[in-house]
Amino acid sequence: MSIRLATEPDFEHIWPIFHEIVSAGETYTYARDTAREQAFHLWMELPRQTWVADDAGKILGTYYIKTNQQGGGAHVANCGYMVSSQARGCGIASLMCEHSQQQARELGYRAMQFNFVVSTNEGAVRLWTQLGFATVGRLPLAFEHPRLGFVDALVMYKSLHK
Amino acid sequence: MSIRLATEPDFEHIWPIFHEIVSAGETYTYARDTAREQAFHLWMELPRQTWVADDAGKILGTYYIKTNQQGGGAHVANCGYMVSSQARGCGIASLMCEHSQQQARELGYRAMQFNFVVSTNEGAVRLWTQLGFATVGRLPLAFEHPRLGFVDALVMYKSLHK
Repeated sequence: MSIRLATEPDFEHIWPIFHEIVSAGETYTYARDTAREQAFHLWMELPRQTWVADDAGKILGTYYIKTNQQGGGAHVANCGYMVSSQARGCGIASLMCEHSQQQARELGYRAMQFNFVVSTNEGAVRLWTQLGFATVGRLPLAFEHPRLGFVDALVMYKSLHK
Repeated sequence: MSIRLATEPDFEHIWPIFHEIVSAGETYTYARDTAREQAFHLWMELPRQTWVADDAGKILGTYYIKTNQQGGGAHVANCGYMVSSQARGCGIASLMCEHSQQQARELGYRAMQFNFVVSTNEGAVRLWTQLGFATVGRLPLAFEHPRLGFVDALVMYKSLHK
């Protein structure tokens, strides 16, 4: 499997992954009814870079990297990751997160911040923790989960500076 | 003094306040060289509402209110406040913050979050704390201060729900 920069035609394969995850409404703070054109803008145009995990032509996952704040905060990167439901549990999120940290370093960022990790997304919290991210904030009841009601969200952070 | 919705002509008086604060680069994560047209977009167009503190025709301060996240995070408001250097220490930030909380409640928000309060901005941290905001996160060295180097930023949060 290779992790490579996404091209515009890749969005045909990214969109089903995005749509499945976002319409479920359990992990991302995009509107659940986000349309395809809006998703293209959010995932492919707004970020600084978008990458895909490509397994012999099959897109199994994708991530973006962007500058989290401007001005005095511009040395901190932000990333978002999505894995196809057919490829969960195969370590693709972990691979993409490691890749994104290396990429962020190469782009000159000194740290990476996840602004909004839904606390009930236990797999993600565990994985980011294993990969060295610290929980530096807890936003009380900041996320309305479609099944669980109002739950906390976490802010997670890792220095990339040696 | 009245706090009223900003109109487009008000930006003539908002811009000097914005420019002085942002070009100093000590408190906001806008690019220090943000141009007037970009500032208009950021302060007057992107937010849901922009308000001014109007003292008999003189604009002494301004704030915006926006939805901090979409989807399951859309019940949390975000605000930013700026006070003219000629009117500091007069309680205008406090008045605007109280006003914004009331406004946020009327707009249906259940909480307010400040995503990035520079830790060395002690006056702001003290004021938001006095007004009931809890420090729910600390972003290590997330802000590059022009005089002090890398310093922490805080995430502050207040429930507006009774």
